[in-house]
Amino acid sequence: MTTPLRLGIAGLGTVGVGVVKIIQQRANLLAARTGRPIEITCVSARSRSKDRGVDLSAYGWEDDPVAMAKRDDVDVFVELMGGEDGPAKAGTEAAIAAGKDVVTANKAMLAVHGQELAELAEDAGQLIRFEAAVAGGIPVIKALTEGLAGNQIDRVMGVMNGTCNYILTRMESAGLPYDEVFEEANQLGYLEADPNLDVGGIDAGHKLALLSAIAFGTKVDFGGVELEGIGQVTIEDIHQAADMGFRIKLLGVAQLTGRGLEQRMTPCLVPAASPLGQLEGGTNMVVLEGDAVGQIVLRGAGAGEGPTASAVLSDVLDIARGIRLSTFGQPAKGLEKMRRARVDSAAPYYLRLELQDKPGALAKIATVLGESGVSIDRMRQYGHSEPTAPVLIVTHKTTRDALDQALSGFAETGVVSGNPVALRIEQV
Amino acid sequence: MTTPLRLGIAGLGTVGVGVVKIIQQRANLLAARTGRPIEITCVSARSRSKDRGVDLSAYGWEDDPVAMAKRDDVDVFVELMGGEDGPAKAGTEAAIAAGKDVVTANKAMLAVHGQELAELAEDAGQLIRFEAAVAGGIPVIKALTEGLAGNQIDRVMGVMNGTCNYILTRMESAGLPYDEVFEEANQLGYLEADPNLDVGGIDAGHKLALLSAIAFGTKVDFGGVELEGIGQVTIEDIHQAADMGFRIKLLGVAQLTGRGLEQRMTPCLVPAASPLGQLEGGTNMVVLEGDAVGQIVLRGAGAGEGPTASAVLSDVLDIARGIRLSTFGQPAKGLEKMRRARVDSAAPYYLRLELQDKPGALAKIATVLGESGVSIDRMRQYGHSEPTAPVLIVTHKTTRDALDQALSGFAETGVVSGNPVALRIEQV
Repeated sequence: MTTPLRLGIAGLGTVGVGVVKIIQQRANLLAARTGRPIEITCVSARSRSKDRGVDLSAYGWEDDPVAMAKRDDVDVFVELMGGEDGPAKAGTEAAIAAGKDVVTANKAMLAVHGQELAELAEDAGQLIRFEAAVAGGIPVIKALTEGLAGNQIDRVMGVMNGTCNYILTRMESAGLPYDEVFEEANQLGYLEADPNLDVGGIDAGHKLALLSAIAFGTKVDFGGVELEGIGQVTIEDIHQAADMGFRIKLLGVAQLTGRGLEQRMTPCLVPAASPLGQLEGGTNMVVLEGDAVGQIVLRGAGAGEGPTASAVLSDVLDIARGIRLSTFGQPAKGLEKMRRARVDSAAPYYLRLELQDKPGALAKIATVLGESGVSIDRMRQYGHSEPTAPVLIVTHKTTRDALDQALSGFAETGVVSGNPVALRIEQV
Repeated sequence: MTTPLRLGIAGLGTVGVGVVKIIQQRANLLAARTGRPIEITCVSARSRSKDRGVDLSAYGWEDDPVAMAKRDDVDVFVELMGGEDGPAKAGTEAAIAAGKDVVTANKAMLAVHGQELAELAEDAGQLIRFEAAVAGGIPVIKALTEGLAGNQIDRVMGVMNGTCNYILTRMESAGLPYDEVFEEANQLGYLEADPNLDVGGIDAGHKLALLSAIAFGTKVDFGGVELEGIGQVTIEDIHQAADMGFRIKLLGVAQLTGRGLEQRMTPCLVPAASPLGQLEGGTNMVVLEGDAVGQIVLRGAGAGEGPTASAVLSDVLDIARGIRLSTFGQPAKGLEKMRRARVDSAAPYYLRLELQDKPGALAKIATVLGESGVSIDRMRQYGHSEPTAPVLIVTHKTTRDALDQALSGFAETGVVSGNPVALRIEQV
């Protein structure tokens, strides 16, 4: 046994407590696997007195995570507070400056400041590791950075926000409208303090931006992620999709083409029989496609105490084993700044619009589609009592440009109320 | 850029050529990811003159892989010849003795000699890495050894022989008997030179034994794997299973219980709607269950040039990056020798037996089952022209001991021809 690896844990919420429990309960196993004891020397959180169900009395305490990051008895600063700025970022910077490695579950911080922090760490010869930031317990950062390192990555896809997937699958299975299931998820504690992080696709977008950087060797560009949340998805959309053999998922897709880096996190229709289509509840799935390996699919719990703590431990144990990798798999300064590209490949789209009940309204819509070069695969108008009628259209394969032209054309007809919903039908 | 990592590749079959291609085509990408150039300095194979579709003229040549393993210009001996003994083992031993690391795709060698070779390597401070030996392109060794290192592993399961899965799914989709699909697979080049390695479950059993060692910290014990091939599975079994909502898979299961280490690679019925049940063709799937992470499912191509070369490269690049791990995730000398245990947990079983057409025959069978404590969930006797009639029985949950008692009881009735087929129904 060599010297212990000493951790300072900042943040004692669900994940922090999960990490403490594993280190307390599995000390021998962890030491056998890494060849050195893993010790917690200090913890930091907002309230010292709160009962968290674990014994913290053997550890030092710091009210200020930045002070903890600088302590001589801390080798690794384990950042589990969250938040893109504030104490998380200050603690990370302080730890690096003090010659410590950092393990974090903080997707927001890295999606926004990852480039800067990675350069800081690499200049100082320190690590920032973040397995827990993407897809919970699924070891996807490791699979992509190391397991598929011999591949040029063609595409990364995934369902990476368990709350959204819970809401969408629950709407379908219980036949409940969005608002009701949203409230249910809220009661169950599934939603972030700012629910838009979940249902607005921001949290999943953060994760996709991190995967892109590793996959394509590009600078993290969260601002380049086309983001669309699930708030517009209705139970009728879900039923209609099901009738056609599809399910609606908040799907992330990233790929590097000649036109630039395409990143999108939007509700899509995927085949119901595909692995992504079959994903239930809070489970996450990431699909990695490499030129040599073909398609690799990874599935597991995307959140929760145990799974996320497992991912944190994976990074901690790598450090204990002496594994030293660049934050994004290659030196941050060498990551390319890539032009942003909108989705290029043609696909069928599902459209829902509210048509005013006027003679010739449907003809106007059909004309706009025709003039935009979008051809109709099927169209359905529902019976209705309101002054507007929901119209569902599935197009043949079309480009996003042609579709956008049609969508702006709709607005000019004067017969469409509100904004049409357009969901891409993705063959996965 | 530091000094190049120099490879000697022994074996230029499909996988060897795949590795050469990636290194030739992706030199810049690999160097960017590892910080050092990856170079092939020497190759070795049976025939020097054979056209393999890649230019080998820049590399040294050795007829003898052992000689190559000792060369001063080789840092890593990449063993892609196969075979549990012979040149593969001799080359591996020579490489370790000469201070080289070893990357191998050789499941047979490691399943049989892994303990001895790992100790040899670790005594010498060298590595043996074998991502390509299990489940082709799926980075499962890495996921288990590193990604889930913070977990006590509860169970490992998997479909890890693509040829068997091809045969079983093809029998079902084409409605063809085993012999015909076996011949088809043979024509397609899917079978090993000794087909029993595939259809007898040996190849998949090798893989399971390697996963067990990592998962449970036990000595590799291939001899302890309960092995049963797919040769007895008939198209009627497959149809009957489908009628009940199941599919038949050659399924590996390993778990460590109070009774010892249970390892089995046998045809099982799994729910048709489960991820394992839906696995088509040559695809592999590994399910890893940890106390913290829950269930992680990994899916991908289990064989082929690109996927297997991707796995070999993963190990090579880890070495280039300075990652140094024990062969089985912890020092080989510390791996425990574990008592072998047969499957303990109760499960329903599917039985097929050939009943002689005598009065009271079925009653005798039912009596044997009752006396063994095995209760019948459903039973079906087919119309028939032969002197024996196929009888299909699905039991309620029963232990393997009770089932074995019933199976030997059947033999004593004098009304059963041949050996009954008994397949476990596994809830996965």
